[in-house]
Amino acid sequence: MKFTLVHKSARSGARAGLLETVHGAIETPVFMPVGTLGAVKALTPELTAEQGAQIILSNTYHLFLRPGADLIARAGGLHKFMHWDKPILTDSGGFQVFSLAKLCKITQDGVEFRSPFDGGVKHKFTPELVVDIQRQLGSDIMMPLDVCSPHTAAKEKVAEDLRLTLDWEKRALEHFAQNQVQAFFGIVQGGLHEDLRQESAEYLRGLDFAGYAIGGVSVGEPEADLYRVAQYTAALLPPDKPRYLMGVGLPQNLQQCVPFGIDMFDAVLPTRLARHNTFFAPDGLENILNAKSAADFAPLVETCDCYACRHFSRAYIRHLAQAKEILAIILMTIHNIRYLVNLTRDLRRKILNDEI
Amino acid sequence: MKFTLVHKSARSGARAGLLETVHGAIETPVFMPVGTLGAVKALTPELTAEQGAQIILSNTYHLFLRPGADLIARAGGLHKFMHWDKPILTDSGGFQVFSLAKLCKITQDGVEFRSPFDGGVKHKFTPELVVDIQRQLGSDIMMPLDVCSPHTAAKEKVAEDLRLTLDWEKRALEHFAQNQVQAFFGIVQGGLHEDLRQESAEYLRGLDFAGYAIGGVSVGEPEADLYRVAQYTAALLPPDKPRYLMGVGLPQNLQQCVPFGIDMFDAVLPTRLARHNTFFAPDGLENILNAKSAADFAPLVETCDCYACRHFSRAYIRHLAQAKEILAIILMTIHNIRYLVNLTRDLRRKILNDEI
Repeated sequence: MKFTLVHKSARSGARAGLLETVHGAIETPVFMPVGTLGAVKALTPELTAEQGAQIILSNTYHLFLRPGADLIARAGGLHKFMHWDKPILTDSGGFQVFSLAKLCKITQDGVEFRSPFDGGVKHKFTPELVVDIQRQLGSDIMMPLDVCSPHTAAKEKVAEDLRLTLDWEKRALEHFAQNQVQAFFGIVQGGLHEDLRQESAEYLRGLDFAGYAIGGVSVGEPEADLYRVAQYTAALLPPDKPRYLMGVGLPQNLQQCVPFGIDMFDAVLPTRLARHNTFFAPDGLENILNAKSAADFAPLVETCDCYACRHFSRAYIRHLAQAKEILAIILMTIHNIRYLVNLTRDLRRKILNDEI
Repeated sequence: MKFTLVHKSARSGARAGLLETVHGAIETPVFMPVGTLGAVKALTPELTAEQGAQIILSNTYHLFLRPGADLIARAGGLHKFMHWDKPILTDSGGFQVFSLAKLCKITQDGVEFRSPFDGGVKHKFTPELVVDIQRQLGSDIMMPLDVCSPHTAAKEKVAEDLRLTLDWEKRALEHFAQNQVQAFFGIVQGGLHEDLRQESAEYLRGLDFAGYAIGGVSVGEPEADLYRVAQYTAALLPPDKPRYLMGVGLPQNLQQCVPFGIDMFDAVLPTRLARHNTFFAPDGLENILNAKSAADFAPLVETCDCYACRHFSRAYIRHLAQAKEILAIILMTIHNIRYLVNLTRDLRRKILNDEI
């Protein structure tokens, strides 16, 4: 993988970059739609690509449990299995183990958990196994296993989790063994504490990661803390490597964080909100079930160029949503993804013109 | 609307035809996917068209209740509302009133019923109103209000329902007033009774309908009765008008009934089965959740050229179906519609070659 810093804005920390992978190049800043189980929810891969998605994220934890990394490897890897030939980033499963699995038990070696399926079969993720799983999936960008502290945890606990995470990341990188096909990112943890973020960033800068993620945000903390931690941490990261803010987010989050020098974002929000009848609009989130849309023959957003806005009215989509028609979800998913893609494209254009 | 009988098979009653409407021409025999609420379930209009669908059916009863024919008229008609520029056939709502609505009360004038929505508001369908509703929808082919007797009804009841239906059809046709934009079909009723079917067909032949439907089949009767009634009734209909077997059906039903001289079919089955993880295969229906598909990297059907079969494996679609991913429904809907489209295309080719 090769990252080129195309332009740094003269007005802020905002950057325009180019990330080249074996599955194609990605212009940054970029928003990555999430395909948790090997499918961006409610869309065919063609529909996802048509919205301008350059890379998607998929979840190691979910794919490990169902259908299993062995099966995906036998299918020829995740790209072939899901019919997506652009880049894929896989997370490490750390966040999901700690938020979704049952009976997590952390040891120095890794984390034991019980599957929510299969009658609670016991599994264990180690830093090395998580690398092996992602190698089986064949993603373009891999992430190391980390411990995700709750944002409400005491500082001592966050510090303890961080040190274990740093040890795991070093082990994972050694196990990974650099190669020309897959790239490996580090994850900066440390919760809401600037000194811990600094300790984390300094340690990881000493290791040869292809990019750096900021984890442990967008986990329920106040928005002001998200911005503070993202800005503080981004400034600690090497300028010649891509920076990825995990699990973020909403249009305003992207607008706010790009000037901090963030290059990559992912979130389940555009797809999840669509399944809850909610779409992005210039003034914020709107729910299509609102009565005011009942006889409104305008599109979801007048200025939007997405397929849904070009061909369908609010009245139609509301009718479908009321009747729980799947097409309502499809159309709002298309709109929400396109909205974030257009937003990042617009931000990139402004960066290149030193407008932000 | 213009119907041209292109070729009649030398070996059976099977016919190849061309049905020309203001929204385009339809090669028959044809299968019409159903878009009950103004959307073929789980597909964008483009995906429906890509499967080779030439015309869809939509339901007057459902659209009358939600979102209302007035709203659709204000939107510019159903084609524009749902972004579908090929032909649309709308049914009369008769079947749905009798099978779905509450507290139906039939009078000489029409049928009163209570909506299952809106706290049970009282509505009344008359033959004239149902024409007006379909005119508001702007469908290419309209159907008259009919009384749908249960297939278990006594013959006297079926005869009584038939005579009321014939009266309603005559009233509807008079109210319709022939025009160049919309076409009006008659519906032959009479249950499983050949003398009633004959009475019905003879009466309707005397009226100037653009085509003739066979109703009151595919309502739970034994398959042998479906075939007997379809064959008997088709032979009573004018050869220069299209013949439409309502609510049919499965691949084997189409194969069986095309040689009787049926030109048009519709059924919710391909879309409904897909939502129940079931797909058409040469040996019959298959359920993708069957364990045998778990590690099967072959497509749903080896010989199928649909988008789902070209790009995805059974293992992948089963994985999606297990996880209740919407994409599983999308892919199986695509396959099932394409399967029936390919079947009718193949039947047409065989008719033109006098092979069936």
